[in-house]
Order: sequence, then C-alpha cells, then structure tokens
Amino acid sequence: MKLWGGRFEGGPSEVFDRFGRSLDFDRILVDADLRGSLAHARGLHKIGILNAEELAVLTSALEQMRKEAAAAVFFDNAEEEDVHTVVIRKLKERAGADLADKIHTGRSRNDQVSLDVRLWLRERIDDAKQHLTGLMEELLALASRYPEAIIPGYTHTRRAQPVLWPHYILAYFEMFARDWERLGEARRRANVMPLGSGAMAGSGFPIDRAAVATELGFDAITRNSMDVSGDRDFLLDFEHAANLIFLHLSRLAEDWILYTGEEYGWMDLGDGVTSGSSMMPQKRNPDSLELIRGKAGRVFGSYMALLVTMKGLPMTYNRDMQEDKEPLFDVVSQLIGSLEMARVTVSTAVLKPDVPKLAAERSWAVATDLADALARNGMPFHQAHKVVGQMVLESVRAGKSALDWTGAELTAFHPAFTAEMAALLNPREGIKTREIFGGTGPRMVALALEEAYKRLAEMKE
Amino acid sequence: MKLWGGRFEGGPSEVFDRFGRSLDFDRILVDADLRGSLAHARGLHKIGILNAEELAVLTSALEQMRKEAAAAVFFDNAEEEDVHTVVIRKLKERAGADLADKIHTGRSRNDQVSLDVRLWLRERIDDAKQHLTGLMEELLALASRYPEAIIPGYTHTRRAQPVLWPHYILAYFEMFARDWERLGEARRRANVMPLGSGAMAGSGFPIDRAAVATELGFDAITRNSMDVSGDRDFLLDFEHAANLIFLHLSRLAEDWILYTGEEYGWMDLGDGVTSGSSMMPQKRNPDSLELIRGKAGRVFGSYMALLVTMKGLPMTYNRDMQEDKEPLFDVVSQLIGSLEMARVTVSTAVLKPDVPKLAAERSWAVATDLADALARNGMPFHQAHKVVGQMVLESVRAGKSALDWTGAELTAFHPAFTAEMAALLNPREGIKTREIFGGTGPRMVALALEEAYKRLAEMKE
Amino acid sequence: MKLWGGRFEGGPSEVFDRFGRSLDFDRILVDADLRGSLAHARGLHKIGILNAEELAVLTSALEQMRKEAAAAVFFDNAEEEDVHTVVIRKLKERAGADLADKIHTGRSRNDQVSLDVRLWLRERIDDAKQHLTGLMEELLALASRYPEAIIPGYTHTRRAQPVLWPHYILAYFEMFARDWERLGEARRRANVMPLGSGAMAGSGFPIDRAAVATELGFDAITRNSMDVSGDRDFLLDFEHAANLIFLHLSRLAEDWILYTGEEYGWMDLGDGVTSGSSMMPQKRNPDSLELIRGKAGRVFGSYMALLVTMKGLPMTYNRDMQEDKEPLFDVVSQLIGSLEMARVTVSTAVLKPDVPKLAAERSWAVATDLADALARNGMPFHQAHKVVGQMVLESVRAGKSALDWTGAELTAFHPAFTAEMAALLNPREGIKTREIFGGTGPRMVALALEEAYKRLAEMKE
Amino acid sequence: MKLWGGRFEGGPSEVFDRFGRSLDFDRILVDADLRGSLAHARGLHKIGILNAEELAVLTSALEQMRKEAAAAVFFDNAEEEDVHTVVIRKLKERAGADLADKIHTGRSRNDQVSLDVRLWLRERIDDAKQHLTGLMEELLALASRYPEAIIPGYTHTRRAQPVLWPHYILAYFEMFARDWERLGEARRRANVMPLGSGAMAGSGFPIDRAAVATELGFDAITRNSMDVSGDRDFLLDFEHAANLIFLHLSRLAEDWILYTGEEYGWMDLGDGVTSGSSMMPQKRNPDSLELIRGKAGRVFGSYMALLVTMKGLPMTYNRDMQEDKEPLFDVVSQLIGSLEMARVTVSTAVLKPDVPKLAAERSWAVATDLADALARNGMPFHQAHKVVGQMVLESVRAGKSALDWTGAELTAFHPAFTAEMAALLNPREGIKTREIFGGTGPRMVALALEEAYKRLAEMKE
Repeated sequence: MKLWGGRFEGGPSEVFDRFGRSLDFDRILVDADLRGSLAHARGLHKIGILNAEELAVLTSALEQMRKEAAAAVFFDNAEEEDVHTVVIRKLKERAGADLADKIHTGRSRNDQVSLDVRLWLRERIDDAKQHLTGLMEELLALASRYPEAIIPGYTHTRRAQPVLWPHYILAYFEMFARDWERLGEARRRANVMPLGSGAMAGSGFPIDRAAVATELGFDAITRNSMDVSGDRDFLLDFEHAANLIFLHLSRLAEDWILYTGEEYGWMDLGDGVTSGSSMMPQKRNPDSLELIRGKAGRVFGSYMALLVTMKGLPMTYNRDMQEDKEPLFDVVSQLIGSLEMARVTVSTAVLKPDVPKLAAERSWAVATDLADALARNGMPFHQAHKVVGQMVLESVRAGKSALDWTGAELTAFHPAFTAEMAALLNPREGIKTREIFGGTGPRMVALALEEAYKRLAEMKE
Repeated sequence: MKLWGGRFEGGPSEVFDRFGRSLDFDRILVDADLRGSLAHARGLHKIGILNAEELAVLTSALEQMRKEAAAAVFFDNAEEEDVHTVVIRKLKERAGADLADKIHTGRSRNDQVSLDVRLWLRERIDDAKQHLTGLMEELLALASRYPEAIIPGYTHTRRAQPVLWPHYILAYFEMFARDWERLGEARRRANVMPLGSGAMAGSGFPIDRAAVATELGFDAITRNSMDVSGDRDFLLDFEHAANLIFLHLSRLAEDWILYTGEEYGWMDLGDGVTSGSSMMPQKRNPDSLELIRGKAGRVFGSYMALLVTMKGLPMTYNRDMQEDKEPLFDVVSQLIGSLEMARVTVSTAVLKPDVPKLAAERSWAVATDLADALARNGMPFHQAHKVVGQMVLESVRAGKSALDWTGAELTAFHPAFTAEMAALLNPREGIKTREIFGGTGPRMVALALEEAYKRLAEMKE
Repeated sequence: MKLWGGRFEGGPSEVFDRFGRSLDFDRILVDADLRGSLAHARGLHKIGILNAEELAVLTSALEQMRKEAAAAVFFDNAEEEDVHTVVIRKLKERAGADLADKIHTGRSRNDQVSLDVRLWLRERIDDAKQHLTGLMEELLALASRYPEAIIPGYTHTRRAQPVLWPHYILAYFEMFARDWERLGEARRRANVMPLGSGAMAGSGFPIDRAAVATELGFDAITRNSMDVSGDRDFLLDFEHAANLIFLHLSRLAEDWILYTGEEYGWMDLGDGVTSGSSMMPQKRNPDSLELIRGKAGRVFGSYMALLVTMKGLPMTYNRDMQEDKEPLFDVVSQLIGSLEMARVTVSTAVLKPDVPKLAAERSWAVATDLADALARNGMPFHQAHKVVGQMVLESVRAGKSALDWTGAELTAFHPAFTAEMAALLNPREGIKTREIFGGTGPRMVALALEEAYKRLAEMKE
Repeated sequence: MKLWGGRFEGGPSEVFDRFGRSLDFDRILVDADLRGSLAHARGLHKIGILNAEELAVLTSALEQMRKEAAAAVFFDNAEEEDVHTVVIRKLKERAGADLADKIHTGRSRNDQVSLDVRLWLRERIDDAKQHLTGLMEELLALASRYPEAIIPGYTHTRRAQPVLWPHYILAYFEMFARDWERLGEARRRANVMPLGSGAMAGSGFPIDRAAVATELGFDAITRNSMDVSGDRDFLLDFEHAANLIFLHLSRLAEDWILYTGEEYGWMDLGDGVTSGSSMMPQKRNPDSLELIRGKAGRVFGSYMALLVTMKGLPMTYNRDMQEDKEPLFDVVSQLIGSLEMARVTVSTAVLKPDVPKLAAERSWAVATDLADALARNGMPFHQAHKVVGQMVLESVRAGKSALDWTGAELTAFHPAFTAEMAALLNPREGIKTREIFGGTGPRMVALALEEAYKRLAEMKE
C-alpha cells in the first residue's frame, strides 16, 4: 500500500522499494506517530472534518494500537515502506478505510514526520538528562569518598601541580553541567509544534495549532511552513550536545585508562566493568572505558553525516533528509548507553590514595608553590621561576626529590629563600596557598563540592 | 626569549622552534592580550604585588602598546614564538625587566590564553551577529519589494505548491533567527572569566576575580581551575553555530544558483557579484553564491578538526590544544566574510515575477488545493488525492495544463467536483485557503513579515 | 561463556555485558570465522597440535556449521557477546569441549578478528566491483542510445559549451574507472594474511603461515605482529574508495535531479524509481537519486568515525577498535545498495534530445567556438574573447539568440569575422572543432566510447 | 585587470572582489604556472599559433619571470585576484600585450589550474616521500641502537606480552611503508596531464597533448575534458594518504608521550624538542609530539572539508572548487612539517632499557608463554589459559611477581607444569618461543630489521 499513486502508471521497482524502505528503523517512532495522530484527529474534529462519532472510533482504535505497538509483534510481517504506512493499514483494519483516509486531511507526511521526531527526541533528551545527572551524582559520591586525597594534576601528561581529588572530579562535574544546559537548549529547539505546516505551504484546513501544541506538551508552534519542511537544525543541536558529552566522556576514559594501568596504578575498577583476554591469562582490561572512548568517533561521524547530507539542499524537503534518522537513532542509543556505562563504571571506582600522594611528592609538582612564595616576598615572578627551575635541574642531577630539601639547604641555594618555605615542599601545604575561587585550596574545594550537590539537586528537579 | 628554561640544559632545536611557533597567527590576539594584562596588573596592585607607581608605569606602557599594536609594524622582525612573548619583550623595553617579570605573578600562560581568546571571540561573535542581522534586513527588504509575487515552492526540487515570495524569504529569516539565538548562547558560554585559574590548580595569589571580570565586561567567573585549563567547549559551541549558519547560507546559495540560471530564469544578480570566464565570452557566473556554498565544507571541517584534536586528551592542558586557533580564526573570517558577501548579493537580487508565476500556473502545483477542496466537501482526503492524481495523469497525457480545465470539465471528470472549484486552479486563489499561522495565505504572510521586522528591530537593539 | 576469566573474581555487570556485546552486528562474519577456523585447524594439524582424527572431527563439525550458519536460525537465542563465542559454543556441542578448547592454540582473538574481517571485506570489495561495472555498463548503454545528441555542458550551473551526450556520460565513466582502480588497491591492502600474529607478539606455535595464506586465497602474509594487532588501515582505504564513489554518485544524482525537473526537462526516469507524495497528487519525485545523494553524508561520516576512533590510540589493540565494525558494515551495505539502485535508475533513463539541443542553441554556448575561430585567424585570443563578449551583450539587449545572426551581420559587427564563421553558431558545427583527444569532437567521442567498452570488458574479466 | 568582461556592464563590487580573491594563497603555484605556460607556448608554436620569434620572446620572458618569482618581491603591490592574472600582467609588460593575449589560445583557466596544481602537488608528494623515508631511517637507527632491549608490549594500554624493542619500532616501519605506497598511488593519480581540456569541452586547437605531457614529465594524459574540469579526486587521494600518515604519527606520539612521562619513565627526548612552562619551573613537556598529535585533527578536517565541498556539485566546474586550495596547501605544509619534526624527535630519543625490562618482568606479561607451554604439552589451550589465569590471581593476592615462582612451586600448583617451564617466567626466554615470521622471536626480529633496511634502500632509490 502506498499513500500516493494516482498519477503513476507503473509501480516501484523491487530494488527501489527495498532501497527506500525505512520501516526497519523508523518503527521506533510508532508511539509518537500514534500520539500525533490522536492529537490531529481531535484537531480535525474541532473544525468539523470529523464528527464526534468518527473521532471516538479513531481515538479508540489509535489508543488500542498504542498498547499493541508496545509489543514487538506489532510489526511482524509488515511489508510497508515505513512506520506511517503500517499505522494507516492497521487503522483501516480497525476503523474502516474511509475514516482512516480522513486522517490525512490537512496533514502531510512532512509535518507528520517532523512532529513524530520532535515528540520522540524530546523524550530521549529527557532520558539523556536523567542519565547525565545520574553520572554526575556518582562522580560527586566518588569525590566525597576521598575528600582529602591528593593527586598530581597533569598538563601535557606530565605531573604539574598537586590538587585535591575532589577538585579533579569537580572539573568533570563542570563539563557535564555545561552539557546539561546544552541538552536543555536542544530540547527547547526541538519542542516546537510543526503540525499545520502541510507539505510546505501550510495546511489548507484551519486547524487550531496552538491547541494541538498544548495537548502534546509543546512550548511553542513553528512560524513558517517552508522552514519546517526543510528543517533539521534541532537534530544537529542535539547531536552537537552529544558530541561534547562524548568529548568529555572520552577524556575521563583516557584519564582512567591511564590511572588504572600498571604504570600509574592509582585506581581500580570493578571486575564487572573490565574484561580479560582469550589469549593472555593475566589481562584485566578497561574495556568499558575504551568502548566509551571509541564510540566518540562514531557519534562525531553521525553529526558530520547529517550536516553533509543537509548542506546545499535546495528548499524545502528533499528525500535525502530521510538519511537523518539512522544516525540520529544511533547517537541517542550510544549516548544513553555510554552515560549508563560511565555511571556504573564510576560507581565501581576505587582510589588508592597513597599512590598518587607519593607521585605528587616525588615529582616536583610543588615547584610552582615555591616560586609563588618567592614572588610573594617581592621577587619578580619570572625570576623566581628561574631560581626554582635551577633547583629542579640540580635535584634531577643529584637524584634528589623535593621532600629531601631542608630549610637550610634552601636558604643556602638562594638567599631569597626562607627556611619556612621548606614546608611548601610538602604538597599538602602548597595547596593551601590556592584558596581562590575555582582553585584547589581545601576550603574552596569543600565549598565547591557542597555547591555542586545543590546544583545537581536543582538539575534533578 | 623563552618564559621558561631554568631546568633545561640545551635550547630548542631550530626545527622545533619553527614547528611550534604561533606568532604568525596568534598576533590577532594582541589587543585582547594587552587588555587582559592591564586588568591583571590592576588585580596585582589590589593585593599588593604591585605598588601604585609600578601599576602606573605598567598601565602606561601597556596602553601605549595598544596604540602601537593597531599598526602592522608592531610585529616587524619579531622572532618570538608567540604573541605573548612579543608583548613581554616590548613591555620590558618600556617598563624595565623587573617590572615586566612581575606581571607573570599569579597567572599562567594557560589562563592568560583562555582569557585572550574569550575576549577576542566575544567581540567577533558580536560582529557576526551584526552581519547576520544586516543580512536579515536585506532579506526582509527583498521580501517587501515583491509582496504579492507567487512562486512555485519546491519539494524534491519539483514544483510542489504555489507560495508567496515573502513566505519563501521568511523561511530563511526563521533559520537565521535561530542562528542569532545560537550565537547568543555561544557568546554566553565564552563570556566567563578564567583568570585566576593558574596553570590548572588555581592562582597562588588572592586576586579578586570578580573585580577583574567586571572590569573586562564578563558575565561570570569560571568555577574550576582544572576545567578551565582543559576547556575548549566554548569554541565548539561557536563553531557549531557557524556550521548551521553555513548550512543555511549554502541552501540559499543553491536555490539562487538555480533560480538565476537559464532554466529557471526567475531572478537576476547584479554584475558586481557575478563573474565571467577567461575562455567563454557569454558566461555570467554566480560566483559569490558558489564561494559561499563551497566555504561550508571548510567550516564544517574546522569544527571536526577541533573536536578530533580534543577527543581523548588526558586532563588538563595539552599542547595539542594550540591547534585550536588557526581553524577558529579561519571560521571567524569565513563567517564574517560570507555573511557580508551574502548581504551584498541579496541587495542586488531582482525577481522577475512573471516567470515564477507562469511556472506555478503550468505545473499542477495547485493539485493539493483541489484535493483539499474535495476533502472540505466530505471526501476522505486520501481518496481526493487519488481523484486529483488521475486528473493530473490524464492532463499530462493530453498535454493540458491546470488552467486549461473548465468548471464543466471538472464536474464531468468526477461528480464530487463543483464548478466553483475551477477557481482553485489559479494559484492566486489556492493560496488563500492557507490562512493558517505559519502558512502561505496572504494575510498570514503579511502579518509574518510585519512581525519579522519587529523581531529584527529587537535583535538589533 | 567467556573465553577468559581465570583471574577474575566477579563476572561482568549486566550493563557492561550489554554495552560490549557485538553479536547483533558481528554475526555477519560467521562464515569467514568458520573458514578461518578450518584453515587454522589444518595449520595446527601440520605442527602436531591436532592429530588426524581430531582434525577430521573439527573439520566435519565446522563444515556442518557453515551450512547451518547460512540460515538465520543459527543465532536464535544466542546470548553470547560475539560471533566467535557462539561459534565456540556450537563447536563444543559438536566436537566436544576438549577439542574445541584446542582450536584456540596459537591464535588470539586479535589475529582471528583481523583474519575474519579481511576475508569478509575482500569478498564485499569483489561484490562492489561487480556492481560498479554493472553501473558502468548501463551508463555506456545510455550513451550509446543517443550517440549524436547534443546537450549544453555546464560550468557554474550555467550553460557553457555544447557537448555530445556520450561525452558527458563518459566523464562519469572515467570517474568510476578510477574508483574501480581504487577498490583494487584497497583489496590488495586487505588481502594480506594476519593469522600467526597472536595477540600482538606473534604466535607461540610454528604455524606455516604461508600455507594458511595460500589455502585461504591471500596474496601475502603480514610482516609484523604488533602492526597487525593495531591495524585498521585497510578498512580506511576501502572507506576512502567508497567516499569517492559516493562523491561521484552524488554528482550524477544532482545532475539528473535537475535534468529531470520541470525547468530543465531533458530526461525522464521510470515510474519504478520515482515516487509520489501523500499530500500533493501531481508529484513525481526523483527519490532514488535523492536517497543516493543523501547517503553520501552518511558514508563520509563513517570514514571520519573510524579515523577519529583510531587517532591517538596507543599501540596495539584497544577495545575502541571494536567500534570499527558497525560503520564498516553500513558503508558496505550502503555502497552496494546505492550502486545497484544507480544501475537500475540509469537503465530507466530516457533522454529527450530536442530539449537540450534547443537549450544549447539558445544559450550562446557557442561563443567560445566563435572566439576560437577568430584566434585561428590570428587575433590574440584574449581580444577575440572581448569581441565575442560584446556581441553577446548586444544580443542580450536586443533579445537575439546566436542562431539569429547572419554571416553579413557578423562581418558588420567586426571586420575580423568572416561570413563562413556564422556556421559555428550552430552547436553541431562548433563541436567539430574540438577533435582533440579527450574533447567533445564527434570522432573523438565515438572512439572514446569504443575504447570504454573495451576497458570495461577488461575490468569484468 | 580581469580576463573576462566583454559582456558585463558593471564591474565587481569591492566586497566580491575581496571575497573571491585567491592571490594570498595561490601564489604558491607561480612556478608551476610559469612552467605550464612555457609548455603551452611551445604547444601553440607547433600548431602555428605562435611563430618562432613569438615563441622565443615568450619563452625568454617566462623564464626570466621564473627567476624573479623565486623572490618574494614578485608579488609586491599586486592587486590582482589570483596568481594567473599577475603572471599575465607581468607577461604583458615583458612581451607586449598582443603576444601575452595569445597565450590564452586553446587553454582555459580550468585546465590551466588543473595543470598547475598537478605539477605542484606531484613535487610536494616527492618531498613528503623523502621526509617519510627520512623518518623511517631514524626509526631503524633507533631500533638498531637497542637490538636486544625488552619492553612490555601493550594491548588496552595494559602490559600484554614482552617484545623486543626493535619489534615494536618495526611495527611503525610497516605502517609508514604502507603510507609510502599510498603516496605513490596518489602521485600516479595526480601525474596525468590535463591541458587541452579547455573549460570543459576540449580545446578548439589541435595541441599535441602527448608532447606537452612528455615535456612536463607526466606519465599519461587525461581522457575526458568534462571529467578534468570537475575532478579533484587526486587531491582527495593525497589527503587520504596524509590522513593515514597522521594517524600513525598520532599513535607514535601517544606512545612516546606516555613512555617519556614520569609513570612509564622508559625514554627521554632531547631538550631541543621539549619545552617548559611559564608558571611551573619543573616542567619538561613533550610539545613536539603533542603538536604532531594535535595536527592530526586539522588534517582530517581538511579532507572532510574538500569532500563536503565537492559532494553533490553538478558537473563540471563550480566556483566552490576554489575552496580546495587553502586546505590542500595546509595539509601539505602540516605533513611535511610534522614528518620533519617527527624525524628530529626520533633522532633525540634515548631508551632506558632497564626500566621497561623491569616492567615486563613484574607484570605477568609472560603468562601467555606459560599457557602456550602447557598447550604444547597437550593441554587444550583454553584450559591452559584458565590454569595460568588462576595462578595470576593467586599471585596478585599474595603480592608475588612472576619471577618469584620456582619450578617446584609451579608443579605444585598444577601437575601439568614441569619445572623447566619456570624458565619461561623470564621474558627473555618466552620471546624465544615466538620465532614465527612476523613474531617477536630474536632471530625473526633481526631478520626483519635487516630486511627493513633493504626495503628502505629501495624506497630511496
């Protein structure tokens, strides 16, 4: 069954039929499609296209179909090209052909699909936000488990400065908080009601679009029918938000793949999220993190795919745009799956605080603290930097670590040093000099953690 | 001159020096760097690192350098690796080495570069918004020049339904209005003050970050120093906004390349924005539009470049991130150049209304109007669609166009037709049936145009 | 059942199990996996790990499984993580656990998967080459149906110069001929036997790798086990070849979407490859071409996905690399589907030669021919270009087309013209001046078409 | 000066002029353009368009310009839109306007640019091949410096199996050897002579294309003029090759950033290729490697940019295609710069063999060797894997490393062990069991290294 054909002499070739078929993937939209049809039916009733009885029959049939469609068998043996055609066939079986034919009034495939996807995506964004806050919650719990642990913070994958473990974790909290906002913006762009746009010129029937929007929970209605017909911006906004989530996840994954490895050895992940090797009996691999990191490439590729498909298309709808769906559905599925996997992985993470503490102590990560102290005493910072740099060089040559220096040795090395400054060679002291908003000072970090819990609670409201 | 080196024995190799050098492109940041240093100096004065006199000397030197840097000669013969090092050398010449050395206090290259780029980008986003509203203004003027012109709207690059010319133009207005919002969101993400984050652990000096933010016009200050050190999200937000602007520009370009071609023949562009051929004397090519469309690929590629560069980097800063700049600067330059080019091109556009009117009349674009009329009289739409489809098929066979049908022929073709329905075979009548919000009905379009002018005025405030 | 686990205390979490599972997509490799295991079993027999009887049992079981795996039921109720684990479970059922356990000897999952994918891809490349030559054959047939038809060739989507229809079609033949070569190169890179590389250090058993390669039809064996473990280059080579095929298909699609539209009106496509609209009864949309063009974005995205996933991975195998498969399988499926769809679409194409002929005559596409004639008589070409340019401008003002000019008018316009040159104002004459190798002169084109048939025959050998 | 304009009334707008201008970047093609013009002039002489004297004047002028163009001042004050127009202006100054005007005969901007880019790129590919073999040579030298060093090979960034250092380095050699082939294929596709194709229909003058090709060192001539006009495949082939080179470089960079870090601590890089921090005195950052890794994103983005720009363009040339150049030039520059930087970095690399040796010994990387030994004695491998896995688990619990096990303990743990197998717990013994072609056995690796030197010598011929 095709929804068109009056002007055609021959039917579609078998190859074309197969090639253009979307039922295998667009079936995911079935509930959105049925809810959209319910709202549209009520709209047609309001303007007299359907009488009360007709509306009742259609409503009952569509509601029944919603229940059935929740079960996989709904699509068994369906040979239609897409989900919408299956729905119409089944509606005909339940409500009669004439009545089912009326549901097409004042609506085209273009505004119908736009509606379905917006309904569906809006809810997937809500799912994603929930999974995202779930992950953030686990991160805060992990931060809270080791409130005073010190680790070497890295730049250039080199030990840079000692930081508190919660400070490190809160950096990810900030990234995901931005992502949460971005998802909200994407939702707002998706949540605009397109029905009534027709194929591209606007519906020929005076449907009360605002009422349909309210019924379906939309914030607003679209303003231009041609724009609607050709618009996939809201998908790209969502996919951009997904890109950045994966960017952040990939960096967390990279960090932890290193931190849990033999060389760093700071952290452990649970057996439940690691795996072995079919050949090497000793292996314990961070597969969950690697898969998350790996999926970033695929998600980025999907954004690019849609952008490329849309680029340079003449107005308004072109069939190319059907290619928006599989990449979109895949992004949603990878995003939700990866957020869930990340949450579970974080929940199994165990820090071994002594290891990173030792690493911080042994690495001259305290050098900046010392240079800052000289600067506080009046030496121009750039000169202080040089003095401490020479001290590091001498230490490296002598196989000496920071903690090996005594106050006396310090003052002997350069007159600007005071004996008290030796205290700063212990990371735990140095971080106390960084009690600036956003810095790793213990009071500031405790405050930031508290604040993060509050912000998270608001996000979850 | 390097800003480090105490612990090094050998200097950088010549190859490495050349490879890592960024002065050729980061010089664009010079004014932002100087303004940032001015604010930082005042911050250092407040906490006693600089006394009043020192501040006065530094301020005067930096302000003088701002003036000089406006001229290209500022960088002549500079052999430094980047703009920041040039600035320091020149500052030393003007304020003395000791004082210049103090400016590094409590600041690292990482938070300094983040500040500079945010300052610079914020203003470029403002430029882009201004160019965007300039383009929108020209589009509205173009819509207003032909308020009643009818063109065939297209789907699948096939004549679909008649629409009013302003309705078509307003579809682009909607796209660009979304882009304007997106730029605003990107600006908000960029406009957060990072100074005080140090290299990644926070500054060791109690700088009043909020005061620095206020002085430099920032809306907020960053919350986590490690996040700042590794963050390029705000660039990606901007580049995503640029992607969508180019997506829309590329579609406008594609439309008009067609509409101004020999086959469509609806529109003309001015001589000033078209060009000829070195070989074919008759050519008049829409180069301005082609270049805009072509640049979309490049801009998309830059977004991908940054995303890929950032993916999977361990926390926090890694030198890879220096590769953010050239693509960013190129996106800004292409974006502003293309918006300007588009505005000028739109300003030269001339519609030849008779041509698209004829195209609409000759194309059965009115078929939906006729089917809608049958549906309004009670025939289920899907059946009405079939009846009209058969009429089209018969017309094609008989070489007949829509306007050739009389009321009598209509009713003879199918009893459901009424003679009055023949009026709908004229596009001008059919569009009147689409007076739905967002549709192409003349009253709705006039209203939408009026509304657009108001919205634009608000955007420009 | 896992193929590892000795050193683990807890099993994988349910979320991780689901997240890492690849059976839904890697089942496509089942036959390759079984053939690889057959060859490996024979390799183990040769070095005494399996005795003759064991080999016979395994061989028989694996061959039987190959038959069963051809039917979809093979995987019913399988809960394993991937195809390889299903195969081992079934092998145990048929050959006993001990014997099945031996098949892992001297082989790891890494070299096994590399082998499977190489085997599978090699054959898909052969399929693609066959579909590509099938398309090329239809293109030559289409060229041959209208050997003397003249169309306006375009640059900048503007009529540029008259060309012969077969010349235009042969341009696509050249593109696809390069693609055919590229597929060959990709096949050569894939067709190297990796077994014996173990996980990454090389097998601990002296398997005769060359014999395995010969048995499985490989051209060569890999040279470094670590390289094998981390290598996905051969997939990227194939995907690059697919990118270029889609680049060429997208351009053919774009051309024909225009040529079959109402404005150009040169060509028709069969009903079997076009479709209608659920709302607009008159529509006849070139969906097959639009879908092909649209899929280009998706294929490009898949290449990018793999490249990004691989970038910056430390040696050798990382689990991220599992993400290579779904995009690869999708590229293969889109490529073969689109080549088939393109072939069928080309086979239905009908040119309406009078329309493009008229377009060529009415467009001053002959202007270059005239300028060339002046240059042949000694006028510097750049000046000839100007003279003809002025003639075009005058004609445009006067509403005159090229064919309206008489010899007398020509010579009156500029003394350098001769009356005979008027003949060149007919496209059919002008193209005769382009009998250069690669040009559109009729003899050259006939020769090129003949040559193309010969080259195609060689490709199909 | 424009090379067209006869049919135009108004000149280009200032905005358009600026927007379309390419002289800033295409000046790089000047020598190629001049050489192409020299060959074209000789071609025109052969067919009588230029007499001997005219040829001599042109040749002398063009040769002189080649010399001048080698100096930067050549383009001073040039206001032309592109390099070709500058060349013509200068040619007019030297050879007179009439003669310069004749050089345009039978050539268009389209085939001229195609020729220039092919000539230029061919030589850049040769440069890249030379830099690539330079890097490979340094890698072999580095392998040779530590022929017997043992390192832990990694999978999943976890110690997997002991391998010889040269084996690890040779994996990169294999990658780069494939890249070398790929560059050769790209060169072959670029090295086809397009002149004579005209704008798209073929030249109107019987130029001896084969002679021009021979003179300019091309292997073949193009076969279809329309194909030439729209073809950028050869750029994409090159850029794909560059993508894979950067993929491999990024992985080498990632490895070494880890290996030279505090945690791994295996390797050192020279001071000349590392850098410090403006804030942290102790830092010594692997910037050269980070920059190389970071540039991969940018190079991938450029490939995508060109692919996107070309996708869906109608035949033949469209101005969009001018956007091919800046990304191409950037890829060439990044590629050559990064290969050089990589070579220098490799040349400074120092391995500290004791560190990785210890890492291999302490990590149960030998587990597979032990399992293999059990399998060689007849235990089905999968069972052997389990036994050794349990041994690892017990060791982890007991804080025991592999070397701590005695033969007696082994046989006590499981009867299948023999006391002799304890030898395999030393990595140096285990690798000897991997004397398979492509494996890490010492004899095989020595052979492979020898072979690599021979292959490299052939590449450099």
